Amino acid sequence: MINLLNKTNLINLLEKFFYPKKVALVGASNNPEKFGYTIMKNLQKAEITIYPISRSDDEILGVKAYKSVLDIPDDIDLAIIIIPAKYIPDLFEDLHKKNIHHAVVLSGGFSEIGEEGEKLENSLKEIAKKYNIRFIGPNCVGIINKTINFNGTFIMDPDKGDISFISQSGALGAASVYWLRERGIGLSKFASIGNSTDIGFSELLKIISEDKHTKVIALYVEGVKDGREFMDAAKYASEKKPLVILKAGKSPEGAKAVSSHTGSLAGSHKIFEAVIKQVGAIEVDNLYDLFNVSLGFAFQNLPKGNKVAIITNAGGAGVLTTDELSKYGLTLATFTQESRKKLDETLIPIASKSNPIDVIASGNKKDYYNATKIALEDKNVDAVIVCCVVPTFMGMTRTEHAEGVYEAIKDSKTEKPVIAVWMAGEIAKPGTEFLEQHRIPTYNDPQTAAKVLGLMYQYAKRK
Amino acid sequence: MINLLNKTNLINLLEKFFYPKKVALVGASNNPEKFGYTIMKNLQKAEITIYPISRSDDEILGVKAYKSVLDIPDDIDLAIIIIPAKYIPDLFEDLHKKNIHHAVVLSGGFSEIGEEGEKLENSLKEIAKKYNIRFIGPNCVGIINKTINFNGTFIMDPDKGDISFISQSGALGAASVYWLRERGIGLSKFASIGNSTDIGFSELLKIISEDKHTKVIALYVEGVKDGREFMDAAKYASEKKPLVILKAGKSPEGAKAVSSHTGSLAGSHKIFEAVIKQVGAIEVDNLYDLFNVSLGFAFQNLPKGNKVAIITNAGGAGVLTTDELSKYGLTLATFTQESRKKLDETLIPIASKSNPIDVIASGNKKDYYNATKIALEDKNVDAVIVCCVVPTFMGMTRTEHAEGVYEAIKDSKTEKPVIAVWMAGEIAKPGTEFLEQHRIPTYNDPQTAAKVLGLMYQYAKRK
Repeated sequence: MINLLNKTNLINLLEKFFYPKKVALVGASNNPEKFGYTIMKNLQKAEITIYPISRSDDEILGVKAYKSVLDIPDDIDLAIIIIPAKYIPDLFEDLHKKNIHHAVVLSGGFSEIGEEGEKLENSLKEIAKKYNIRFIGPNCVGIINKTINFNGTFIMDPDKGDISFISQSGALGAASVYWLRERGIGLSKFASIGNSTDIGFSELLKIISEDKHTKVIALYVEGVKDGREFMDAAKYASEKKPLVILKAGKSPEGAKAVSSHTGSLAGSHKIFEAVIKQVGAIEVDNLYDLFNVSLGFAFQNLPKGNKVAIITNAGGAGVLTTDELSKYGLTLATFTQESRKKLDETLIPIASKSNPIDVIASGNKKDYYNATKIALEDKNVDAVIVCCVVPTFMGMTRTEHAEGVYEAIKDSKTEKPVIAVWMAGEIAKPGTEFLEQHRIPTYNDPQTAAKVLGLMYQYAKRK
Repeated sequence: MINLLNKTNLINLLEKFFYPKKVALVGASNNPEKFGYTIMKNLQKAEITIYPISRSDDEILGVKAYKSVLDIPDDIDLAIIIIPAKYIPDLFEDLHKKNIHHAVVLSGGFSEIGEEGEKLENSLKEIAKKYNIRFIGPNCVGIINKTINFNGTFIMDPDKGDISFISQSGALGAASVYWLRERGIGLSKFASIGNSTDIGFSELLKIISEDKHTKVIALYVEGVKDGREFMDAAKYASEKKPLVILKAGKSPEGAKAVSSHTGSLAGSHKIFEAVIKQVGAIEVDNLYDLFNVSLGFAFQNLPKGNKVAIITNAGGAGVLTTDELSKYGLTLATFTQESRKKLDETLIPIASKSNPIDVIASGNKKDYYNATKIALEDKNVDAVIVCCVVPTFMGMTRTEHAEGVYEAIKDSKTEKPVIAVWMAGEIAKPGTEFLEQHRIPTYNDPQTAAKVLGLMYQYAKRK
């Protein structure tokens, strides 16, 4: 399978699945309680031509509908399918007749329900192979491409971003997208693979790695059925962009649970560990870190060394950051004499001018600007972590510290990575949003920020 | 110092500081840009008698004000002080004359600003000693007691809860309170210790350990100046209730940063580690876990063994939970034949009835009820983790899974701990709120839930 897929094939699949111009929605519905309604609503947000297919209605949400794909007076790039499982083999015959070669099957009722569904799934596989129909699913949440605002799922849109996320679990994928909306991290592509009867995890990874609008790929992996194939795909993707991976089933009991849940090999975790190591991918421990870490790679350059400057307005945050940095081989930079002099000249006497720099609670926009600029321009500094513990103090606006940091980065003209920590819940939101609008990844705790920079450093060192 | 403080002394200090009936606010103000205004506003929420002291105004926010504490026609339990540092030694003379023996000094301008401030602080210490005035601060955020809605700080109120939080950093303390508001975790007492010139961290810990409304004590510690004193206090408190601790400055570089930041001993971390071990306290790695873990102890009973049942509506969450459990010596329970039979009878055929139980995406209130009840009543099960990955599916309400869990706990009449995982960001909020109203701690990721249960198990085993 792998060797057949050259770059041209991959780019073609990327175009057909993620950048379709003409889409048939088979199972479109006017009933708000049906998935076929929600998917139609989602599809209508993109500037694509939609051909709804409905047995009962002549019009779906204001768009002319057809009884069969065969009736569509146009060529179709992609069919999205949400009709009962039993009708899908016949539908595939129609796809062939209509010369449609790409489909996403969201419908459930296949191997996941037992023996009967498995038979149906096998017949689908055979038909698809015979007619050269490539398909994602069945039993999946579908795919999204925010680059063209194409949402072929029944879930809500994530924000637009640079991270592409492939999930082996539809539910965890959907839960993640909902969390990302709240967190304000955007996605480029999203794909849930479902039963991966035809297009599997590895192939999808290679396809998405060809996407120019994807800066980082985030993977949620439960089990790997074919270790060699996955290794090949991970290597292929990893040469193009950072690959951040959350693997479920690392412990022996967890692996057993994966095995009963997905049917993949229990022993596969060892293969998997080897893959991560060999291809230089980045491993994380939980879903939130999967995206927090991806965001760092998406927004910032890699550090060129291990020397970090920390800026804070409360000592504790500097200490917590320092503690975490050391776990990743990062260390506190020693400022040059020149920087020390500049810090003495610009910060108030009781501010701490060694590393971590503590501008104390009264530190304002100007202090954040000066500290950040001096740190970035110091030749002993490879990266900066800026913390704002409580971004509020008599007479200050809630974004002024953030503005100081942003302007310092702009004026310093260095390419060193800057990671921010804005704490204090709701109060930190305006500053966080300001910083992330300017592509400075911002977290609500020092440890996550240090971890993100730490993993970026380790990745840079390996490359 | 320690031996002088018997239980009666501690309870007296608890009463005077945290349950005052008559409070003088020295430095009260009608100017919304002054701390003395915000503190006054906060104090007015409690049913206590407030005597504002103001040089300029005869009335503060509608309450008759006095020029000096000496003019107050009443006995005072506690003075809250927010006037410039240089006036405070004289004020302490007045406190003595007025027979006021308890104060919280929020004002900055003492040892934290250098030599001159240090002199002032030393003189304050001497005066207080001479007149037997016990005080918290200076240079602190102040104290809160949500049991009587008493907020003697300039920060916003947390919700009311069972966790008391002592912070060695005012800023991190405030940032935490703001995060807790957003997260919906309540506090009982909050105290920031500032420069701890008189009442220090250890003494405050002993005082709060006497509070009947405190179920768990959460500590943020930067440096311990007197290891033996802290050991004594931690032991004293730990015998009464669980003590959850976040220690900053664990790494050598972090310890150095603590040392320059707080002036406490660099070598103290070793003492500290010994204390945690010896008193059976619970150590966590970040501020959010400090409260997530405390919430588990506050809301649930300790597990009596290490066998856990997991219930989920998407396999992946079960696997991620299982992976994390094994780090803490917890393992998956093997259900009895009887439970297996009941699960077969009540759940749909394609649901997974071994552990983790997967009620799949269509699992509704009834399925969550049945699975939770059967798991809780199984004699092989010591604790239950219930996950709801996406609490939304055609026709379901956003709280119905949560209701099923709650009703099962009520009907099962067991005392086994139940921890919940409600994922999917905003969509999970109604269910999360419902569960936490019923004292079921609910997290947004499987790993945190497993960690909380794991630390509860390890604590139970040590006790």
